[in-house]
Amino acid sequence: MITLLTDFGLEDVYVGVMKGVIAGIHPQAHVIDLTHQIPPQNIALGSFQLGNAYPHFPPGTIHVAVVDPGVGSHRRAIAIQMPSGILIGPDNGLFSHVLRYEAAIAAVELTNSQYWYSTQPSNTFHGRDIFAPAAAYLAKGLSLQVLGPKVPLSALTALSNIFTWQPTPNGGTGNIQAIDYFGNLITNIPASEVQHISWSLQIDQHHIHSTTSYTTEEAYPTLKALVGSHGWLEIALPNGSAHHILNSKIGEPVELHLHP
Amino acid sequence: MITLLTDFGLEDVYVGVMKGVIAGIHPQAHVIDLTHQIPPQNIALGSFQLGNAYPHFPPGTIHVAVVDPGVGSHRRAIAIQMPSGILIGPDNGLFSHVLRYEAAIAAVELTNSQYWYSTQPSNTFHGRDIFAPAAAYLAKGLSLQVLGPKVPLSALTALSNIFTWQPTPNGGTGNIQAIDYFGNLITNIPASEVQHISWSLQIDQHHIHSTTSYTTEEAYPTLKALVGSHGWLEIALPNGSAHHILNSKIGEPVELHLHP
Amino acid sequence: MITLLTDFGLEDVYVGVMKGVIAGIHPQAHVIDLTHQIPPQNIALGSFQLGNAYPHFPPGTIHVAVVDPGVGSHRRAIAIQMPSGILIGPDNGLFSHVLRYEAAIAAVELTNSQYWYSTQPSNTFHGRDIFAPAAAYLAKGLSLQVLGPKVPLSALTALSNIFTWQPTPNGGTGNIQAIDYFGNLITNIPASEVQHISWSLQIDQHHIHSTTSYTTEEAYPTLKALVGSHGWLEIALPNGSAHHILNSKIGEPVELHLHP
Repeated sequence: MITLLTDFGLEDVYVGVMKGVIAGIHPQAHVIDLTHQIPPQNIALGSFQLGNAYPHFPPGTIHVAVVDPGVGSHRRAIAIQMPSGILIGPDNGLFSHVLRYEAAIAAVELTNSQYWYSTQPSNTFHGRDIFAPAAAYLAKGLSLQVLGPKVPLSALTALSNIFTWQPTPNGGTGNIQAIDYFGNLITNIPASEVQHISWSLQIDQHHIHSTTSYTTEEAYPTLKALVGSHGWLEIALPNGSAHHILNSKIGEPVELHLHP
Repeated sequence: MITLLTDFGLEDVYVGVMKGVIAGIHPQAHVIDLTHQIPPQNIALGSFQLGNAYPHFPPGTIHVAVVDPGVGSHRRAIAIQMPSGILIGPDNGLFSHVLRYEAAIAAVELTNSQYWYSTQPSNTFHGRDIFAPAAAYLAKGLSLQVLGPKVPLSALTALSNIFTWQPTPNGGTGNIQAIDYFGNLITNIPASEVQHISWSLQIDQHHIHSTTSYTTEEAYPTLKALVGSHGWLEIALPNGSAHHILNSKIGEPVELHLHP
Repeated sequence: MITLLTDFGLEDVYVGVMKGVIAGIHPQAHVIDLTHQIPPQNIALGSFQLGNAYPHFPPGTIHVAVVDPGVGSHRRAIAIQMPSGILIGPDNGLFSHVLRYEAAIAAVELTNSQYWYSTQPSNTFHGRDIFAPAAAYLAKGLSLQVLGPKVPLSALTALSNIFTWQPTPNGGTGNIQAIDYFGNLITNIPASEVQHISWSLQIDQHHIHSTTSYTTEEAYPTLKALVGSHGWLEIALPNGSAHHILNSKIGEPVELHLHP
């Protein structure tokens, strides 16, 4: 099984072309779309979304992720062997959330042109020319080492600025790391911080009480703080969009208050 | 075969996560997306779209639908055995159009935690935690009764306000129940009302003559009334959007005039 | 393998219904979406996108394309045998780019009602009623000739106005034929025009130098001209949208300057 996550959008055939290349190499491959609507070149959000999906796929799944502003430059094209699957894409930090969830086992640079789509890959579409073929050959049973030389795990690029949650004894300070389609504001504060304790969030001047589900009996629902299904604390408006009310930006600070 | 219809959008990985859960239980499952762009929490439009798709799938297809503003509340999670397939989702009226097309055979409440994704499901994402696993186990051959206790068919939630078409001897009054991507205005007047008879529609002050296809030889096309491919009367503008011209809202009244 | 390209959008279940029809005829069919976001009724852009995808699919792939403003009129429904696959859709010019890439072998008109979804097809949804079933039967092994009478290849509709690139000894004049999701402006000037030579593009008053990748070391990136991955010259802004800067329209002239 191969998953695809890109910032290619759905208006063009770029994603379809990757599937055509995969099918040409391994017709039995089972390809699942994670999303293709990562905002263009937004590596941090790509990493966030891939990190949310990764834990829910069966062992051995091959995840191809392409948010690749450096395509055609000297950034490495890599494949990473993980305990629960394989990651394929540019070495630009896109795998940071997954690597926080699970430690990598090994990584290689995809330099063996025998497993490229053409020995003269374009400088603009490595999804088609390098990443899709690598995934198809691995799904077909090729071993990772054949794709290119080892890369030391310590040399992999990590996004350093996305996990800036600062805990304190009575809570701490995090920020909004993503805003989902429903307008839920997803913080970078892990759910593990609020187990078996009463808590609330503060954003700007708003004090937001915690609850356990999106539903409410209020005639005029107010903002709620919840443990999101992805494992991060989030701010939601039942039957509405917290984003429309707060007009928050990604990166905006959020305070956690614990009430022991 | 499993179909998915949700209001999750395509920007996040929520749909991908459901597919990962299904693949973990039943890797051979064949999953087809109906749409994930039901407007958030709009049960009536979700019911309409599912009702349009359902008749065109082979017997035995399992349809998972998740438009679920009540997730985490006391609304039931259900599976319904139909003559031509199985419906899985929240018991909130989302299956009203399908149940108008075909009578249900039996229903169960999905309370058997053995077939949940985790024995502690979230309060916010039953698509992942309850509905996707139920579909995967049923596709794998599990029988419906194992998933939980029977629900009397009379206890299933129905949307009462969506089939408010009022026929009269010379026509009748219905309303706009959906507006599609092309800007066609789809009424709740069934095509069966206009067989072998001349007819027209009226919306606001516009009298709209019936025709049989979107094409026209007019240099400046005008609004047309048609029998839509979904089996409802609709208002269309050849090579354009009726919605852009009329700026109609869902629920707006439409008069049918029969011309015997 | 069957690919689908339409202007149906993703909000409605029209695409899902086509997949249901295919699955009903040939459950093992492997269906890949190219795109469903061709702008409504825009045959030229549909042809462009299909032409970009076609070369990257394995031999024998069946491509169904439905951008069909003439549905229900006298335009033919056709299937075309190509050296590397089969094309199915309306005979309205939608296959022009593919037919420029590769010469057709034979074509038939899809008039044999035995292979329609119903012997009374709608006038509004031939994707469901004629094209999807044809694809499913062909994928199952039916031979093309059975679907209807031969159409002379010279009688196929071609878009005459899309390949209006006018080369001159020092370059030539083309135009913008598409704008992709990233805001790259894709011309109708083939990459083969600029092999082994220095070149630049001019659009309006902007002289744009050629480069080989989207990446740049400039602090404030400027517009670049590139050979796109699809084989056409394009104008791009590294880490940004050329379209946002130039606000170009499809059809706008572009000058190629060769610098021998």
